[in-house]
Amino acid sequence: MHTTAHIISIGDEILYGQIADTNAQWISQELDAIGIKVTQRLTISDVKEEILNTLKYCEERADIILITGGLGPTEDDLTKPCLAEYFDVDTKLNKEALTHLTTLFKRFKFELTPANKQQAYLPTNCTMLKNELGTAPGMWFFENNTVFVSMPGVPFEMKGLMANKVIPKLKEQFDLPIIYHKVIKTIGIGESWLADKIKPWADMLPANISLAYLPSLREVKLRLTTTGTTKELLIKEVNKQIELLKTYASQYIYGYNTDTIQSAVGDLLNVKNETISTAESCTGGHLAHLITSIPGSSAYFKGSIISYTNQIKKEQLGVSPNTLKLYGPVSEQTAKEMAEGVREKFDTTYALATTGIAGPEGGSKEQPVGTVWIALATPTGTHTKLLSLTKHRMLNIEASSKSALAFAWQTFVQSS
Amino acid sequence: MHTTAHIISIGDEILYGQIADTNAQWISQELDAIGIKVTQRLTISDVKEEILNTLKYCEERADIILITGGLGPTEDDLTKPCLAEYFDVDTKLNKEALTHLTTLFKRFKFELTPANKQQAYLPTNCTMLKNELGTAPGMWFFENNTVFVSMPGVPFEMKGLMANKVIPKLKEQFDLPIIYHKVIKTIGIGESWLADKIKPWADMLPANISLAYLPSLREVKLRLTTTGTTKELLIKEVNKQIELLKTYASQYIYGYNTDTIQSAVGDLLNVKNETISTAESCTGGHLAHLITSIPGSSAYFKGSIISYTNQIKKEQLGVSPNTLKLYGPVSEQTAKEMAEGVREKFDTTYALATTGIAGPEGGSKEQPVGTVWIALATPTGTHTKLLSLTKHRMLNIEASSKSALAFAWQTFVQSS
Repeated sequence: MHTTAHIISIGDEILYGQIADTNAQWISQELDAIGIKVTQRLTISDVKEEILNTLKYCEERADIILITGGLGPTEDDLTKPCLAEYFDVDTKLNKEALTHLTTLFKRFKFELTPANKQQAYLPTNCTMLKNELGTAPGMWFFENNTVFVSMPGVPFEMKGLMANKVIPKLKEQFDLPIIYHKVIKTIGIGESWLADKIKPWADMLPANISLAYLPSLREVKLRLTTTGTTKELLIKEVNKQIELLKTYASQYIYGYNTDTIQSAVGDLLNVKNETISTAESCTGGHLAHLITSIPGSSAYFKGSIISYTNQIKKEQLGVSPNTLKLYGPVSEQTAKEMAEGVREKFDTTYALATTGIAGPEGGSKEQPVGTVWIALATPTGTHTKLLSLTKHRMLNIEASSKSALAFAWQTFVQSS
Repeated sequence: MHTTAHIISIGDEILYGQIADTNAQWISQELDAIGIKVTQRLTISDVKEEILNTLKYCEERADIILITGGLGPTEDDLTKPCLAEYFDVDTKLNKEALTHLTTLFKRFKFELTPANKQQAYLPTNCTMLKNELGTAPGMWFFENNTVFVSMPGVPFEMKGLMANKVIPKLKEQFDLPIIYHKVIKTIGIGESWLADKIKPWADMLPANISLAYLPSLREVKLRLTTTGTTKELLIKEVNKQIELLKTYASQYIYGYNTDTIQSAVGDLLNVKNETISTAESCTGGHLAHLITSIPGSSAYFKGSIISYTNQIKKEQLGVSPNTLKLYGPVSEQTAKEMAEGVREKFDTTYALATTGIAGPEGGSKEQPVGTVWIALATPTGTHTKLLSLTKHRMLNIEASSKSALAFAWQTFVQSS
């Protein structure tokens, strides 16, 4: 049915966690975009038996096997001899590969060592894929009704080969369907509650559209995937389902695909030509950081006052000394006055404030670590919300910032 | 010989390239640190046969199998039923897991749905690993002389389980060699220049100590690894080598292991009972966020003014209108006045300021995107530095913040 692929990453530095395997993720995205289903990714050691066993394992399970790594000039790079052994062929000097090597080395004014020259010897059954950006050529094999592709592990060399050589050849060789994904971003509801709420919709989804839940910090993403032959039709079908979904959960949907809660808040402000500022205690700048991570945020974000002391809360934000004495710095009233203070001082339409106990120290029985008040000052009044988070400082900082943005987004949407 | 492990990541969102599998890399690092050799990592689909086949495949090849993902309350999460089927056991209600769930839901004031309650049913042959940070418990199995561990895919939940439950149990169950790593953190010098500078030292390292370069954003980590039977001896040997290293590169070493440039700056301020504040334009709060990510930072950090408009630079930071007119907001003079302004206003020993063009828009021929001025105001005068960074907004924000901290650290160290 589907054309399937396995991705093999070869290298001890990946297995030891010394480097991130960004290649495999990138290849996954590229294959997904042309309708090839990656059914497995494997990371293995640069050891002969491992490579041979894995080639066999993958050949039994996938139509296409993409291999990265293990093609350098040093002795511990075994991919090429293993492929020759696997297919039971010799290697021989490939003239085009040697010409390319010689040109490259001349250009960089390096001498071509025997170790380097070795890179121009290729298994006799492969098609050479010229690597414009490096010395190790890519190799394309078609054996036992399976495509094997070997590429260097250096990301930009691999990407060049994929884009210019491998993807076009795969499109030529396989009859590929069109796959269309759309991710729906929700906030303000947990995964299981959302699942309960939208069950009638999920149960009625057509068989050719599949639904996945992708939870992340303080939000849940829903991914719809569908396969067919006409992209326009798939887009139409998915959008129709999203319209139906909205009758169950529209109040939680803040965006799609690459949208973030900070970009959703920014979009709402942009449309109305409104502005925002922040006053931060426990989030310590992270809330402003999320807002300013969006390109063009200077159109609606004016600034922030981070007040890590009571004195700054009083002097810069105008929190009343009485409030601090009566209710303490972590209180609804302090959050309210912080938001109102910065809104007035920075002359913005709205202002968000956070004050809480990020931890790990500083909690009490009445106010444990993770207690956070957020406040949103608006032209028509100030709204507040209490959060009970975790014992972990970084998590509390991130969750408070995201919750503050979600709170603003919900308030904006409800009042419009 | 070695105790070996396989890591299985379950989830279509990884195979489709929609999210990076940061879990597998992190687990690799943790296992490496305790002397367990990761011999393979596999990413597979949330499909029953795939999970069952992969469990069998890994059981034949490794002593330990660590599984992440597929433990949510929704229907597409199959890891638990697959494990029960694989071991041919039933699931039953685990009372401790249910108590934990009930407590969590009460705390968040949510109702426990049947879907949620399902998470407290566990295969009868497993040891429950309490997940303090979420609803899906970890599971530990010991069957056929192999350890199987199932953990949720949410990174902070998985990390909590690994650190508090899995690593201690693995250390107990297996006779692991003693591996001692020490990471030396350097800043202010690129990888190849550092390598040149310390070459005489690296060439003389004893055979039982290996050196790895781990470059990351704006810094280079050096990791020394040694294996033996007596930890004290290993520590002594490694520390001796670090003393020798210092004769080549002491001015770049800001700390070790989990130290960060923000914790190094904080330590220096703490020792002298000094304080700091920030005035941020292009970093938009990220600099304050780095500083406040350190527990106890409220002892030395008073606050920040984030000025995303010229008006706030003038009104709140006291930047002279003439400066803005003559030199513009992205200039050495503006950075200087911002730092001096917030230092005076917040009454701190030091103040750091940033102003620049984060991008992607807003650059010009004279001032391309990535142009950033940083300033450090001190009791004896203000120091400035110009950075020429990239075209990428997030990278520019992060690199500017880190560079500002590195600049402060270098100034503090040189003046002490």
